Amino acid sequence: MEQLHIVKIGGNIIDDADALQQFLSAFAALKGNKILVHGGGKLATDLATKMNVPQQMQDGRRITDAETLKIVTMVYAGFINKNIVAQLQACDCDAIGLSGADGNFIRAKKRSIGTVDFGFAGDIVENAVNKKLAATLFAEGKTIAVAPITHDGNGQLLNTNADTIAATLAKAMAEMFETVLIFCFDKKGLLQDVSDENSVLKEINEENVEALKFSNVISAGMLPKVDNAMSAIQNNVKRVVLGHANDFAKLVTGEAGTNITK
Amino acid sequence: MEQLHIVKIGGNIIDDADALQQFLSAFAALKGNKILVHGGGKLATDLATKMNVPQQMQDGRRITDAETLKIVTMVYAGFINKNIVAQLQACDCDAIGLSGADGNFIRAKKRSIGTVDFGFAGDIVENAVNKKLAATLFAEGKTIAVAPITHDGNGQLLNTNADTIAATLAKAMAEMFETVLIFCFDKKGLLQDVSDENSVLKEINEENVEALKFSNVISAGMLPKVDNAMSAIQNNVKRVVLGHANDFAKLVTGEAGTNITK
Repeated sequence: MEQLHIVKIGGNIIDDADALQQFLSAFAALKGNKILVHGGGKLATDLATKMNVPQQMQDGRRITDAETLKIVTMVYAGFINKNIVAQLQACDCDAIGLSGADGNFIRAKKRSIGTVDFGFAGDIVENAVNKKLAATLFAEGKTIAVAPITHDGNGQLLNTNADTIAATLAKAMAEMFETVLIFCFDKKGLLQDVSDENSVLKEINEENVEALKFSNVISAGMLPKVDNAMSAIQNNVKRVVLGHANDFAKLVTGEAGTNITK
Repeated sequence: MEQLHIVKIGGNIIDDADALQQFLSAFAALKGNKILVHGGGKLATDLATKMNVPQQMQDGRRITDAETLKIVTMVYAGFINKNIVAQLQACDCDAIGLSGADGNFIRAKKRSIGTVDFGFAGDIVENAVNKKLAATLFAEGKTIAVAPITHDGNGQLLNTNADTIAATLAKAMAEMFETVLIFCFDKKGLLQDVSDENSVLKEINEENVEALKFSNVISAGMLPKVDNAMSAIQNNVKRVVLGHANDFAKLVTGEAGTNITK
């Protein structure tokens, strides 16, 4: 099996032009098949403020009304995605940017209304990843840059969590590639002591994850990321790493970050 | 040679959701290889107004300062492109949206400063179209939807005229495909009498084009479109048609619109 790296970067690095440039150089230098999934950053919120579109959050997730969907589509699939693609091209990395609608890459359905109406938020459906499209692009030497916007197949775009997209892509692609999933965020890894950047947990696994959740080492904010990571590792993804974007090359080799294993 | 249709749609139809939906259904129904190039519409201007970014025009072209580049990237490559792609997917047309940066599809250079500084406006360079990317996507059954944003290969996105992109793509692809170029706009074709929609000129060619320019039948606003069309026909594009988006199927067959021939 050929190898595939799927890398998620979050908002903090997208908001920092220098850090983003440095990360993209490191990412571009990684050989072989790769997918970069990016989040949104503060830009969508800033634009909403300028446009006088009030933003509502629920459990750290944006409620996507019609105007907000327009904003995130513009910012994520337009501004951020195309700037990342252009910068990767400048680093001799032949990137192509995709939303979930492009080539029917990722299909989702509008989240059903429970206690909260998340609006145009999309949950990825079963077998929703167009693996053939990815494989075709890899065979042509392309790197894929994914914006966290999906579609429902009936013409509706949907705002979808980037961590979930990265994990879902990893699980789907693991059928065809030896897949490594790397979550970059603003910490060096999962910290035993959140105030000490040197207290990185080297490994979490099925054995110790529940105890770490119970003792709040895995905090509320990290919970979805860790759950996504564990779910990936339980579904044939070879390795999952959590760490700082600045340490990218070392996250790839396993020298830095927190490794999630079975 | 396989056939290829390249279709340009302008702002007027993009601003009209019902007309756009109707056009996209007709476009989706066209069999074979196809590329849709879309312009911008009023959305970019509306967003600029909301964001308090003053817009300057020169000879009908937008002056693209840094903030305006951000806006057109968001609106053209984000909102419009992804909504078109999602709507085509809903019509069983397997569309994939590309800017010029994606897969290095179209390379341009920043327009040099003459009497006017157009800012981040891009002029397409020689041999700048990645024909192999298009051919690969067609072989996979994809339809390409192109947003009028290009890049310079050094990480800079550039705002580029959609008519020029359509004509340049047609000339480049004509080496590989029997290419038909269709410009859809808000008239039924070139009108002998601008106040009479029934006065469509059936054909213009190298023989009569200069006289039509001289007599102002080809008005100032239509001049770049006609020049693009003539240039395409002089560079191996098989057929160029100008007409109304509502008549799309008849523009394809040649029953409506103005045909540009040698």
